[in-house]
Amino acid sequence: MSHNSFGHLFRVTTWGESHGPAIGCVVDGCPPRLALTEADIQPFLDRRRPGQSKFVTQRQEPDQVRILSGTFEGLTTGTPIALLIENQDQRSRDYGEIKDRFRPGHADLAYELKYGIRDYRGGGRSSARETAMRVAAGAVARRVLEGVTIRGALVQMGPDRIDRAVWDWAAAEENPFFCPDPAAARRWEAMLTEARKSGSSLGAVIELVAEGAPPGLGAPVYGKLDADLAAALMSINAVKGVEIGEGFAAAALSGEANADEMRMGADGRVLFGDNHAGGILGGISTGQPIVARFAVKPTSSILTPRRSVDRFGQEVEVLTKGRHDPCVGIRAVPVGEAMLAITLADHLLRHRAQNPDAPGEARLPRN
Amino acid sequence: MSHNSFGHLFRVTTWGESHGPAIGCVVDGCPPRLALTEADIQPFLDRRRPGQSKFVTQRQEPDQVRILSGTFEGLTTGTPIALLIENQDQRSRDYGEIKDRFRPGHADLAYELKYGIRDYRGGGRSSARETAMRVAAGAVARRVLEGVTIRGALVQMGPDRIDRAVWDWAAAEENPFFCPDPAAARRWEAMLTEARKSGSSLGAVIELVAEGAPPGLGAPVYGKLDADLAAALMSINAVKGVEIGEGFAAAALSGEANADEMRMGADGRVLFGDNHAGGILGGISTGQPIVARFAVKPTSSILTPRRSVDRFGQEVEVLTKGRHDPCVGIRAVPVGEAMLAITLADHLLRHRAQNPDAPGEARLPRN
Amino acid sequence: MSHNSFGHLFRVTTWGESHGPAIGCVVDGCPPRLALTEADIQPFLDRRRPGQSKFVTQRQEPDQVRILSGTFEGLTTGTPIALLIENQDQRSRDYGEIKDRFRPGHADLAYELKYGIRDYRGGGRSSARETAMRVAAGAVARRVLEGVTIRGALVQMGPDRIDRAVWDWAAAEENPFFCPDPAAARRWEAMLTEARKSGSSLGAVIELVAEGAPPGLGAPVYGKLDADLAAALMSINAVKGVEIGEGFAAAALSGEANADEMRMGADGRVLFGDNHAGGILGGISTGQPIVARFAVKPTSSILTPRRSVDRFGQEVEVLTKGRHDPCVGIRAVPVGEAMLAITLADHLLRHRAQNPDAPGEARLPRN
Amino acid sequence: MSHNSFGHLFRVTTWGESHGPAIGCVVDGCPPRLALTEADIQPFLDRRRPGQSKFVTQRQEPDQVRILSGTFEGLTTGTPIALLIENQDQRSRDYGEIKDRFRPGHADLAYELKYGIRDYRGGGRSSARETAMRVAAGAVARRVLEGVTIRGALVQMGPDRIDRAVWDWAAAEENPFFCPDPAAARRWEAMLTEARKSGSSLGAVIELVAEGAPPGLGAPVYGKLDADLAAALMSINAVKGVEIGEGFAAAALSGEANADEMRMGADGRVLFGDNHAGGILGGISTGQPIVARFAVKPTSSILTPRRSVDRFGQEVEVLTKGRHDPCVGIRAVPVGEAMLAITLADHLLRHRAQNPDAPGEARLPRN
Repeated sequence: MSHNSFGHLFRVTTWGESHGPAIGCVVDGCPPRLALTEADIQPFLDRRRPGQSKFVTQRQEPDQVRILSGTFEGLTTGTPIALLIENQDQRSRDYGEIKDRFRPGHADLAYELKYGIRDYRGGGRSSARETAMRVAAGAVARRVLEGVTIRGALVQMGPDRIDRAVWDWAAAEENPFFCPDPAAARRWEAMLTEARKSGSSLGAVIELVAEGAPPGLGAPVYGKLDADLAAALMSINAVKGVEIGEGFAAAALSGEANADEMRMGADGRVLFGDNHAGGILGGISTGQPIVARFAVKPTSSILTPRRSVDRFGQEVEVLTKGRHDPCVGIRAVPVGEAMLAITLADHLLRHRAQNPDAPGEARLPRN
Repeated sequence: MSHNSFGHLFRVTTWGESHGPAIGCVVDGCPPRLALTEADIQPFLDRRRPGQSKFVTQRQEPDQVRILSGTFEGLTTGTPIALLIENQDQRSRDYGEIKDRFRPGHADLAYELKYGIRDYRGGGRSSARETAMRVAAGAVARRVLEGVTIRGALVQMGPDRIDRAVWDWAAAEENPFFCPDPAAARRWEAMLTEARKSGSSLGAVIELVAEGAPPGLGAPVYGKLDADLAAALMSINAVKGVEIGEGFAAAALSGEANADEMRMGADGRVLFGDNHAGGILGGISTGQPIVARFAVKPTSSILTPRRSVDRFGQEVEVLTKGRHDPCVGIRAVPVGEAMLAITLADHLLRHRAQNPDAPGEARLPRN
Repeated sequence: MSHNSFGHLFRVTTWGESHGPAIGCVVDGCPPRLALTEADIQPFLDRRRPGQSKFVTQRQEPDQVRILSGTFEGLTTGTPIALLIENQDQRSRDYGEIKDRFRPGHADLAYELKYGIRDYRGGGRSSARETAMRVAAGAVARRVLEGVTIRGALVQMGPDRIDRAVWDWAAAEENPFFCPDPAAARRWEAMLTEARKSGSSLGAVIELVAEGAPPGLGAPVYGKLDADLAAALMSINAVKGVEIGEGFAAAALSGEANADEMRMGADGRVLFGDNHAGGILGGISTGQPIVARFAVKPTSSILTPRRSVDRFGQEVEVLTKGRHDPCVGIRAVPVGEAMLAITLADHLLRHRAQNPDAPGEARLPRN
Repeated sequence: MSHNSFGHLFRVTTWGESHGPAIGCVVDGCPPRLALTEADIQPFLDRRRPGQSKFVTQRQEPDQVRILSGTFEGLTTGTPIALLIENQDQRSRDYGEIKDRFRPGHADLAYELKYGIRDYRGGGRSSARETAMRVAAGAVARRVLEGVTIRGALVQMGPDRIDRAVWDWAAAEENPFFCPDPAAARRWEAMLTEARKSGSSLGAVIELVAEGAPPGLGAPVYGKLDADLAAALMSINAVKGVEIGEGFAAAALSGEANADEMRMGADGRVLFGDNHAGGILGGISTGQPIVARFAVKPTSSILTPRRSVDRFGQEVEVLTKGRHDPCVGIRAVPVGEAMLAITLADHLLRHRAQNPDAPGEARLPRN
């Protein structure tokens, strides 16, 4: 059962609320003897951290991760790895406004109806703060995925899409949006400044790419790599859609246009003409780059009042003051990368268990 | 672990290959004392069955389901329900052409690289024939979901979308496409006839709606209802994208436009202005209709030859003769409904375990 | 969740009632390309089959197993293996006597209180008939455990224990009790004839030994090999106790007496002086023989009337006529072997996933 | 998958090594709105804590538990409960002696063969220190089990059994052995003093009783209450045997002697003459007291040198100096209680999910 866990063999269980004393996770099943210290995790957390530009929430947290178990003398031991980040910026404020009111688009009402109780401070368990632990666990997953490159980029903000023809991974690290199209990044800067000033918010679409993943990850029918990846990405806060490869656009293609033709490389490697499939066929990786996209809705916390109700069944108006991301999709980039890494690490272990002698590359003949 | 299982408390495990002696499933965790006979399951199978119109594969199978365990005198007993359908139309044909060749867009290559062996007859385990058992298990799930209405419709074929303003559920049962827009259905008839004649294929988008599901289904963070639903739908053959509510379109909305405002009904019921969220907030159902969509790629089996490779690393051309659906998205409608039913039934049991006294409707105050 | 499943990566799900049309199981996660036909499974079923001697139930069933999926041309394919046995001896008899009455020592009352319904014919789901599928699945597990020898023997019947000094595995196959002590087998023949004639019953203790299992199976804390083995054996009908190695007798030993001293063999192999630990330390196999025992209570179905109650809350007397094993412990031997095989196969896959380069034997230095 | 987790719906995941900075656990699935603060957990930890008498290890740890998540204003919220205890007594000592040597009876060799690395300080992950978190999680489980009384007692130390006829639960809390027979407690004091002085050690048998648990907990075949309980208890460090009810002694009884006859109480309650079954029939609780026993081997750490080997394949002698329990069975009493509580809480939630209208008591007729 997986209320708060993700993965099976590489299994991540997170805990913690936005304004509790700490957040943390347990990574169970990590293979032994991999080099791992806090220094391998911290850069990924820094990348996601709030307060880094004026375009993300100004909550100030160093998000300093500690490894509490599962390593010895800088190596993993095969036992559970506990990671912990103390919450430092629990500034005492007045929650009277949201204590009993349900913010539209937030989990408030759903939690109330389900549990009859909720830690309303900063969203409690439903806060995006939990995603810090995903990023930390993702950094551990990357150690398992030696030789696999996992990257993400923002490909749409609000209604504005990037020009894919100019895709530049290096550029994506040089603007505050993880945007691989410098011209789009400049447009977005203006858009987001405007949204922030007016207390509005914008949605976004993120694209993830994993290169170098071996073929054979996934399993028929329900243990499919794409099914697990869909769950992984849809489980991120505010995500409303997930695509693999061509995604929804595939529905509009003919069978001829959508076929990824194959030929043989000189070294016995299978070469593909296109990658409409996003690297996954029949739920199993083919050795092509794995490509996924997910859509993040605009931040629900806005300054314009919206009609809502409260715990007592009274109609109220709600507006959300305080520190918020005008576009939560930005910080979803490292989170998406982490979920892709965790999903691949889990499937790598699963694949290895059942198929210890499978090839690591798409070469033919297999034996 | 879930190689071939879906769900946790309402758990479906399927087995079987396209051209083996039979296919089947085990439904574990179904509550006792629900009325269940083959007659409760068969109509759903008939709805999905091939050979019903010229627009779906002409494979002739009565798909007669048998209940082999888990019921007694017409009632479920709480023990595992085994369902079985014998494969009758295993016509002996020459598989020489696909035995060693990898059809583009099919699972052939991925299976070879993973397992080094595959039952190539009719796609083996990766055949859409497996989805018959999903539909059967979905019929059992519907018994658990007393009072919940689960329906699906085709809302796009190829690039042609329906006019949502004329949505008519009754109409969707009167054309061979499960199309709720009669005008679109007429256009699609022409399109699909053309595709079938030319040996081409078309993609599709399916929309699913569950009305009457209680609030509180789902769980924070990883056991989210939408995350499990994304996995459920992405696990269907040929699916490349999944959306909840507004889906990818949410990325282009402002926070103001995307807010689902609430007010109180006269009877203490929470009323929503819109349903951009698709009935799920923070991973938990709110009591609004649950709305999901998924995209199905065009059938990979086409008559136009495509370049490919074979098991021996030789370049070949592949074209797929034989009986095939020019638009597999059509038969994905009952399959999608079934996966939605299974996901909801599973979450209903999970919710009940942890929250036995939660309300069945979105009423306030809760107590 | 595991209502009716056992194992994680090598996962067995059984279904079926004693007097339903069939019983079956799904074995999910079996590695591909292992030779497997019905002929590999049937001998183990024949060994467990009722009606083979006058000392076991006279129910006449050929118990002919069919493989319905998961193999192709005599090899496993990595997809789920469905096994099925039709129930042939469903002789129509009058169940009036037990329909509403709760037989002491049987699951009748517990099922009624839990489910409010039960298939009372022959015990329904709680019948030992289910164990036929364990034996079938165990035969598949043995294919995964190449090089591991798994055997079981009856070491106690009623209060009469064997003389361990004369242990003879060959003899255990030559008497109807799987007894490795020929003298004890002769005594038991008299005891059991007496019990059968008087309508009484006897308990038993079974010992299982696995030789050749690699070190490293198991995992710290909860995924322990001995913990899973305890569950595996306790899950067999009528079992009330499980021991590993020295078992309960270890409680009476001093630390000095219980220590399994080690020395090095000429070939780098670790040699042990004793095996009080039963081959498992810290939940992980050491490479020594794995030794487990389990106790089976006397068959609850006896001819002497016992006081009981019925569904309506009335006091009644119950005696059980019909075909029964006077000592169900006998047929528990092949069932115990099967559960040991399944547990080891599951842990072998789990171990391999996390530790692909672990050695297959207890040799030092490790690298 | 359950490398370091126990339970399904009430799921406990522990982490931490003996000499790392902290140990902890995550309790996932706990129902909301149960009163829970550190003060509800600490008394159980104090009961298990080392250093309380001269008969247990002199390691001095306050074992102060902190709740880091999952509660709000003194109530559980339904989100994961993280518990943490800092390790304070990590006295820096020389581990040179055991760093490369494998102590007989310890997990050292098995870890080396499995992982090729281990945190040897104080046993690392295999230390009994992990059981502190079981006790903490067990205290949470007790909140779920309102109305159920769970107690344990030491019924045998070394070869010396208590006199069951004088069983006194109150007395068990008044001696340092949790012994319900005051005369036995006096004998054990002498025995253990002798063992401690000579650097030897003793085994023990613990009996657990749960009174007031509802009928219906458990599930047929593999999700059996007794199977899960066997795993729960066998997973405790140094445990080599588990019994339910009559246990191994049942093997020596006749069917007549072993039958638990039933009659009706005046209030519709089913009354049992005996409880040979230990409250579980067919894997499901009957409403009778649930009775289990487990055997703990003598502490492997002894002062008498034993022959062993080291990482380099050299023969060595090992003796274990330092602070150790001469009878680890004593502190296993609260640990066993905790594992029983966790197992029952998990099954209570599982039962409720599938059978929401089952009765809480063994009354007939059921409806």
